[in-house]
Amino acid sequence: MQELIMNCEIEFLPDGGVVSPLGFIAGAARAGIKTHGDDVALIASETPAVCAAVFTQNQVKAAPVVVSAQHAPNTTTRAIVCNAGNANCCTGAQGIENARRMCELAARKIGCEIEEVLVCSTGIIGHALPMEKIESALSGLHMSTHAAAETLNETLARAVMTTDTKPKYCAARTQINGATVTVGGQAKGVGMIGPDMARLHALPHATMLSFLTTDAAIEKEVLQTALEEVVARTFNSVTVDGDTSTNDSCLLLANGASGVQIENSASHEYSCFRALLQAVCTSLAQMIARDGEGATKLVTIEVSGARTAKDAQTIALCVANSPLVKTAIFGRDPNWGRLAMASGRAGIPFDAARLSIRLGEIEVFNGGEPTAFDKPQAEAAMSGDELTIHLQFGEGEASWTAWTCDFSYDYVKINAEYHT
Amino acid sequence: MQELIMNCEIEFLPDGGVVSPLGFIAGAARAGIKTHGDDVALIASETPAVCAAVFTQNQVKAAPVVVSAQHAPNTTTRAIVCNAGNANCCTGAQGIENARRMCELAARKIGCEIEEVLVCSTGIIGHALPMEKIESALSGLHMSTHAAAETLNETLARAVMTTDTKPKYCAARTQINGATVTVGGQAKGVGMIGPDMARLHALPHATMLSFLTTDAAIEKEVLQTALEEVVARTFNSVTVDGDTSTNDSCLLLANGASGVQIENSASHEYSCFRALLQAVCTSLAQMIARDGEGATKLVTIEVSGARTAKDAQTIALCVANSPLVKTAIFGRDPNWGRLAMASGRAGIPFDAARLSIRLGEIEVFNGGEPTAFDKPQAEAAMSGDELTIHLQFGEGEASWTAWTCDFSYDYVKINAEYHT
Repeated sequence: MQELIMNCEIEFLPDGGVVSPLGFIAGAARAGIKTHGDDVALIASETPAVCAAVFTQNQVKAAPVVVSAQHAPNTTTRAIVCNAGNANCCTGAQGIENARRMCELAARKIGCEIEEVLVCSTGIIGHALPMEKIESALSGLHMSTHAAAETLNETLARAVMTTDTKPKYCAARTQINGATVTVGGQAKGVGMIGPDMARLHALPHATMLSFLTTDAAIEKEVLQTALEEVVARTFNSVTVDGDTSTNDSCLLLANGASGVQIENSASHEYSCFRALLQAVCTSLAQMIARDGEGATKLVTIEVSGARTAKDAQTIALCVANSPLVKTAIFGRDPNWGRLAMASGRAGIPFDAARLSIRLGEIEVFNGGEPTAFDKPQAEAAMSGDELTIHLQFGEGEASWTAWTCDFSYDYVKINAEYHT
Repeated sequence: MQELIMNCEIEFLPDGGVVSPLGFIAGAARAGIKTHGDDVALIASETPAVCAAVFTQNQVKAAPVVVSAQHAPNTTTRAIVCNAGNANCCTGAQGIENARRMCELAARKIGCEIEEVLVCSTGIIGHALPMEKIESALSGLHMSTHAAAETLNETLARAVMTTDTKPKYCAARTQINGATVTVGGQAKGVGMIGPDMARLHALPHATMLSFLTTDAAIEKEVLQTALEEVVARTFNSVTVDGDTSTNDSCLLLANGASGVQIENSASHEYSCFRALLQAVCTSLAQMIARDGEGATKLVTIEVSGARTAKDAQTIALCVANSPLVKTAIFGRDPNWGRLAMASGRAGIPFDAARLSIRLGEIEVFNGGEPTAFDKPQAEAAMSGDELTIHLQFGEGEASWTAWTCDFSYDYVKINAEYHT
């Protein structure tokens, strides 16, 4: 995939987001579900688009995930409607009705079928949505283009935030066959982050939500393939606490407004498009880990030399989820022993005598034994707001990258003092 | 298993431990590896015994685990030698030699073959064992019986402690065919606790160590079967942080001194013996969870109504390992949503509409929706030093129990401020 990326020049756009691609309009409004700020957002394509979608594989299903999973297979999709502050999860038959009603209100607003709308919710669970407030907010919401409202991307990202401390949004573009294709995206989620999303498995308490848009012209099936390939390497490889939420959803709309055709998943155009999508999703995934509950740094776990990509992924996520590794990083302790332990407990066979471990550029473990490294230098390498841990297994050629954050007093504070 | 337990009356002994069964002698001494107190222990049978053993399945192997796994299959076993303060892990060929040397010193002390000795270490990793200190301690160590030293069980349990705040030991006895059979045990470990031990898979940084003794007369293979069945339901079902250590070992010696024969694994005698072993191991597993790093309470996760025992086990451990569940318990928040989420992320299919959740006696969730429960009453139920969470799935008849603790500021403090 690295090679493919090198064939296309990808450029990130300042203040880019979901309305950066051509032909998308959106708006946000306050319904009064959160304590302050906008809490309802509507993102729409001006023309019929196709969608791709993956949802949480958690067995407990939130109503909006059930409804979106029913609507996602339809031939055309026009919009995504979302509220924050209430997850509409564990809310029974009334919850399903309310999720459908949100689609209906959005469809009426933009003039499309109810089935052409996808719906997401995030926030507290077990409480009925305040439908009157949502209805009133959606009816007053003003839809505009990026050209008309330059801060719209940030406004939309803020409307979906719950415990996030920062809005998360970006967009990037590339040239395909001489024309510009753009992908925009936004994400929310800082806790209950251990996404494990797959196609149309409608299952739910939404915490990782990501909305993506593109003006590429691409068939629905090809778009779904691209999304699944990219989500595995991005959103499904980020973890804060390993707790897979009940409403995780990642939705992608493609409206063809750029006129650039992505023929099939074997084409050069597809490779470029997928690289573009991956660049946007990687950026959003890193923002999620960096803003993880209580996090003081973004931690990248680079596994290489594994026998298979699946092996590399399993080890990377096992290390990224280890409380002992995450607390050691918070304490700036170059604790190679915990890294070796966490690698070894993933259930993947390897020979520890071939394992080497680096913290940034500093080798701390090699050939089954610790390296004589300079401890103050290693601690200094752990003092910034980013740390990359390299684990080379010497078993094969496969690699995987996972993103996480350190585990601090504030994680406990945020999650022990938060009350239902 | 419950039924079988009812056929045998099990009685715990005051201050019981590994020298409570007949025919065992032991001693502890200070080698000066830990900052204070005894740090070397030797437990031996006066006559040749048989052993059963399970070791960590972590891929990173500590030297004593490698050596013990080589010695465990032998026909007879006489002793267990152990040090605390240094795990002899990631120490290369010298580490293996040092582990063998510990067996040799123990064998010389009690007059047996080197191959009849099992060895364990726990503590920091990546440092060579101070063999001169260990040699000197073992040569000065005084072996005695329980009759001669009434506090010996506690002394032995303390000698193996690292970050434990309390020694963990117990013994119980029952009548089989009119004669008394006793099982004694001790354990250590309060962090890096997520044991996943299996037979003869020598793999290693020892944190959960348990030594068990019995005066039952039992064949080696039958003893191994009993140990594996019991460990699955006890030590492998306790978790503090889910991090499987590199040196976890559970060793059981049976010397036949009671004269009570346990014929085979289908006999009534076997059922009683296994129940006795399970009672001792359950008690030790609970002590580990209760003393978990930073723990303010022992938390029992009771899963019932699952389709298979494996399903029940997977869900129970997934809930027991969830940082969001554990921080909510620390905060005394009756957060049924996190319990439903953690149940649902275990990868086991179930219908949430049949799930019910109780905190102690208080139902908080039923039929896919929250129950109207009295919140102050639920918070009060979470304020003691023990909490049982019942998860009933209504899918089948299988059940499983896991033990864990809450996740507090002190867990972060202990693990972020500890430096290698």
